[in-house]
Amino acid sequence: MTLKLGVIGTGAIGQDHIRRCSRTLLGSQVVAVTDIDLVQAARVVSDLGISAEVYSDGHALIAAPDVDAVLVCSWGATHEEYVLAAIAAGKPVFCEKPLAVTAAGCRHIVEAEIASGRRLVQVGFMRPYDQGYRALKAVIDSGQIGEPLMLHCAHRNPRVGENYKTDMAITDTLIHELDVLRWLLNDDYVSVQVVFPRKTSKALSHMRDPQIVMLETARGTRIDVEVFVNCQYGYDIQCEVVGETGIAKLPEPSQVQLRSQAKLSNAILMDWKDRFIAAYDVELQAFIDGVSAGTINGPSAWDGYCAAVAADACIEAQGSGAIVPVNLEQRPAFYR
Amino acid sequence: MTLKLGVIGTGAIGQDHIRRCSRTLLGSQVVAVTDIDLVQAARVVSDLGISAEVYSDGHALIAAPDVDAVLVCSWGATHEEYVLAAIAAGKPVFCEKPLAVTAAGCRHIVEAEIASGRRLVQVGFMRPYDQGYRALKAVIDSGQIGEPLMLHCAHRNPRVGENYKTDMAITDTLIHELDVLRWLLNDDYVSVQVVFPRKTSKALSHMRDPQIVMLETARGTRIDVEVFVNCQYGYDIQCEVVGETGIAKLPEPSQVQLRSQAKLSNAILMDWKDRFIAAYDVELQAFIDGVSAGTINGPSAWDGYCAAVAADACIEAQGSGAIVPVNLEQRPAFYR
Amino acid sequence: MTLKLGVIGTGAIGQDHIRRCSRTLLGSQVVAVTDIDLVQAARVVSDLGISAEVYSDGHALIAAPDVDAVLVCSWGATHEEYVLAAIAAGKPVFCEKPLAVTAAGCRHIVEAEIASGRRLVQVGFMRPYDQGYRALKAVIDSGQIGEPLMLHCAHRNPRVGENYKTDMAITDTLIHELDVLRWLLNDDYVSVQVVFPRKTSKALSHMRDPQIVMLETARGTRIDVEVFVNCQYGYDIQCEVVGETGIAKLPEPSQVQLRSQAKLSNAILMDWKDRFIAAYDVELQAFIDGVSAGTINGPSAWDGYCAAVAADACIEAQGSGAIVPVNLEQRPAFYR
Amino acid sequence: MTLKLGVIGTGAIGQDHIRRCSRTLLGSQVVAVTDIDLVQAARVVSDLGISAEVYSDGHALIAAPDVDAVLVCSWGATHEEYVLAAIAAGKPVFCEKPLAVTAAGCRHIVEAEIASGRRLVQVGFMRPYDQGYRALKAVIDSGQIGEPLMLHCAHRNPRVGENYKTDMAITDTLIHELDVLRWLLNDDYVSVQVVFPRKTSKALSHMRDPQIVMLETARGTRIDVEVFVNCQYGYDIQCEVVGETGIAKLPEPSQVQLRSQAKLSNAILMDWKDRFIAAYDVELQAFIDGVSAGTINGPSAWDGYCAAVAADACIEAQGSGAIVPVNLEQRPAFYR
Repeated sequence: MTLKLGVIGTGAIGQDHIRRCSRTLLGSQVVAVTDIDLVQAARVVSDLGISAEVYSDGHALIAAPDVDAVLVCSWGATHEEYVLAAIAAGKPVFCEKPLAVTAAGCRHIVEAEIASGRRLVQVGFMRPYDQGYRALKAVIDSGQIGEPLMLHCAHRNPRVGENYKTDMAITDTLIHELDVLRWLLNDDYVSVQVVFPRKTSKALSHMRDPQIVMLETARGTRIDVEVFVNCQYGYDIQCEVVGETGIAKLPEPSQVQLRSQAKLSNAILMDWKDRFIAAYDVELQAFIDGVSAGTINGPSAWDGYCAAVAADACIEAQGSGAIVPVNLEQRPAFYR
Repeated sequence: MTLKLGVIGTGAIGQDHIRRCSRTLLGSQVVAVTDIDLVQAARVVSDLGISAEVYSDGHALIAAPDVDAVLVCSWGATHEEYVLAAIAAGKPVFCEKPLAVTAAGCRHIVEAEIASGRRLVQVGFMRPYDQGYRALKAVIDSGQIGEPLMLHCAHRNPRVGENYKTDMAITDTLIHELDVLRWLLNDDYVSVQVVFPRKTSKALSHMRDPQIVMLETARGTRIDVEVFVNCQYGYDIQCEVVGETGIAKLPEPSQVQLRSQAKLSNAILMDWKDRFIAAYDVELQAFIDGVSAGTINGPSAWDGYCAAVAADACIEAQGSGAIVPVNLEQRPAFYR
Repeated sequence: MTLKLGVIGTGAIGQDHIRRCSRTLLGSQVVAVTDIDLVQAARVVSDLGISAEVYSDGHALIAAPDVDAVLVCSWGATHEEYVLAAIAAGKPVFCEKPLAVTAAGCRHIVEAEIASGRRLVQVGFMRPYDQGYRALKAVIDSGQIGEPLMLHCAHRNPRVGENYKTDMAITDTLIHELDVLRWLLNDDYVSVQVVFPRKTSKALSHMRDPQIVMLETARGTRIDVEVFVNCQYGYDIQCEVVGETGIAKLPEPSQVQLRSQAKLSNAILMDWKDRFIAAYDVELQAFIDGVSAGTINGPSAWDGYCAAVAADACIEAQGSGAIVPVNLEQRPAFYR
Repeated sequence: MTLKLGVIGTGAIGQDHIRRCSRTLLGSQVVAVTDIDLVQAARVVSDLGISAEVYSDGHALIAAPDVDAVLVCSWGATHEEYVLAAIAAGKPVFCEKPLAVTAAGCRHIVEAEIASGRRLVQVGFMRPYDQGYRALKAVIDSGQIGEPLMLHCAHRNPRVGENYKTDMAITDTLIHELDVLRWLLNDDYVSVQVVFPRKTSKALSHMRDPQIVMLETARGTRIDVEVFVNCQYGYDIQCEVVGETGIAKLPEPSQVQLRSQAKLSNAILMDWKDRFIAAYDVELQAFIDGVSAGTINGPSAWDGYCAAVAADACIEAQGSGAIVPVNLEQRPAFYR
């Protein structure tokens, strides 16, 4: 059984997913695409050598009878609209992050999905599909380190472009930790504080970098995440879980160990795209398999909502310097 | 385009490959199987829920019109016969190691393939498809460590069963190094010597363990491989390449780093099946893609022949304690 | 030239220092001792086989004509009095931490030393003499990682006794970081905040553990120190300096790497006394050499005062949960 | 009690030892020196600011009544003569390696020492005093890895000068392994083989480099030592002991871990003098303490003899390419 997919948005990530479905993953076929730039959408179809119909817009694509499921890869501001349309059509939908640009938008989707009576939405958070994070979660869940008490994390990029603003450290960068750490701990955030260390001279004048985000969870676990997007030396993701009896650390990417020029060294990745490349495959395969089996269990609309609420609190905390509560609504039984 | 495969031999590795083609890899379908135990073959088909015909024997399977390519996973002694039959039928064939149980048998296959006029054979050596070995080769080929002068390797198993004899340390264990190190160095072996250290008390009485195999290549590179199949502590594959200006080491498998009970530790695998699990997928996908594209370029019949000749020399060296030449014929232009 | 030392306090640390001066270090001789328990002091002299006179109290010892310099190893509450007496006598004095039990006490010593016109006091902070911290400082000072922006530190003990209270995490444990990090960064603290994560079930009921102390320096560097004194797994000191262009990490103690029982591991120390054992020797040798050369340049009375002020702020922050300023007086020119 | 030392030879190592005794070690004083160049010897005395008499030659120095013990740091060819003279005078003698330039010379010393009736000689092998090797031996002796079966070692130098010949890879370089591995294993060598890999293009034309020395011990343990003296990248000493149940590896020197410029790295030493600098102190202190206590137990004349016999066999094996026996005489009861 091949799952017939329609892809809304044929930019970089959209093209990646189309290629993935066509050449790497099992059980799916892209039969429909659309984009705000229809010429570009047609060119992607022809460049990739697939036979997919180009639809005039996302709503037409969602409505197409041969489209079994939808991938939303368009501009963030349009996500909510298309996800709601897919739910209305009763079609499973994989939505790239963010699920919606506001927490309220996410909430609408949650309500619509609950009303539909079944899980239709998977949000494009790929880190829970990373082999390293999965191994880390397995160690935690095994009880080897006891109950988690603290997490020390870092999200570092070599550098960012001109259009990167201070709040994007939350919405574009930290957002991955906001999702994956909830999953890792099986816990919710209750408050957040942001402090700004001395600014690096390598950051552009309009932004503050680095920053340290400190989260508290419902069970009292304290998380600190260093977000440093002009660190120069590499793309480096760190996560150390301090438990009652031991500490577990996210594996460094596997690298050849070199002895050369008075150094014993391992390469550090420079490009974020190399870091989680395998996780993207696993994530989308999980969606395809989940839809085919009738059991989507990747990051849910509720997870998307929780990440959005936490991100809002972080941005407020950036501005105020105060400890800001993360006010989640009660988790619906539907998502338990 | 789906490649229709026939699988000869539905034992452990045969079942793995069938499962792999059905559930993990792209572009193939198992349409035919056979085994010396036809009841078992039928059960595998039904257990895996695939629709494949059970043929009475390997020759009937090879002859079947809807079989595009053949996987030989039967008992080693039958490999030569089936590979020759596949070549005779003009059908691409993936043959689990060994290609043949004698160097002469491998030579027959080489001759038959040359006579056929095109590459039809891929031997099931999976290590060249391992991400770690590929990264190591990339470092060597980049010139970062200069010309390779020495390799220090180890192939360690926690323990082996009763039926494992001293010469199997060559034919079942070292055989992987014999293949992958030729590929890594792009070089040929010219001589071999084997020494037996003090025997471990953990080995059964009928076998010698550990042993050290020392190979010399045509370019003068010296390789030592410690083969230790009752090392107790783990399945551990080591490969360190000493070049003129630096040293590169095969990555350890990526693991969570743990601080616990007065130890800073990373897990070592115990089961060999976990070590190269991803490489098996990549290897077989490469065969499927190669056949589909008309360019098989994995381990060739010539590589299988070279491994067989080197293995024979190693076994002679085990017995004599002397330095034994590895007498390869000249490499045919066909395999350049 | 042998420096003749008088030692006030012959408890554990006093005995260690006497032994050190007698058997390990060059250029000194213990000629005088005293203790609140004179019988014990006499026994120490006889057990160690040294020829030292036992004085009736610290003041008599300080006044003794053949005492060139004084080591204060008595109960903390007596330190201020003896250090002031030594300064009054114009004799160099090495004082175990704390220099005084209050910041005001430290201030008195600072004033007395300034009035004396020359450096007479070295405080017993040994970490700046640890080879690892020195190597770390050398890397920072070399400019290899750019300006320090953040420090991520941890101070972990396997467990603590009944008499250990929550504030001792500051005065007995964090105090070492308060000293060494100022030295490492050549900077001063301006504020501190303490948060309490979920309490470990391994801590006794009367204390909170772990805690995270967050310090800000005058140059804006942000420091987080995890203090976790019931971590079970080991005595583990971590310090990672995040600079503008790279990160430098305090070396782990050198250990044999073991492959055994499915683990690749290095031992972690369990006993804090093993961690800085070499640093104690270097520290005291530096005092002896400094006195002999007329240039004491180890941790100064001013450093002792700064640590005391910071510790007071940390204890206030433990209680209030707020960000507490660290109000240092202006550094006297004497200490520049 | 201060041990009064006479030092024969005031070249580089002689000066180091004089400085060590004067400024770092406890319990000794250099009271006499001599050198083939008496002017230089006098200058060393004056430069180091010690009060030592300059003697006309080694024999005069040995005879001097105030010389309690002798350090032989002169040209290798003179060692035997001075050590014998010291024994004849009944004075303890620390002799830099080699004990004698021939095995026969070492044998003479052994006989003379036995005849003297007590241990007078310590040979200047410093590696058994290295903290890393001691930790490694402790792990072996603890039984944690079972009986040692194989050792994989490397001795690498960045480069060597013009005067370094192929056989110096044995007499100047491997000689340290020949000593320390006997001590580590508490075992004797029975045979040796040397193979020459492809020569590095970085070696001068007159010498062969690298080489691999393979030793067999009386208990059957197999040792391979890579000797590579133009490896470019660093001074690097490796030693891995493969036992029946696990593997123990000599610690790498402790270094700051750096994340910088796309590399996670630790520095590798370039200068051999930095590698065992602490061991030289411990070694000579052990001699001083041993003499003072009447129990010299460092590397003995017998150890020097065994190293010399093994070195002779290695040099023969370099020439012949054959497996050469190491013919030790029976160990005298005196050295058990």
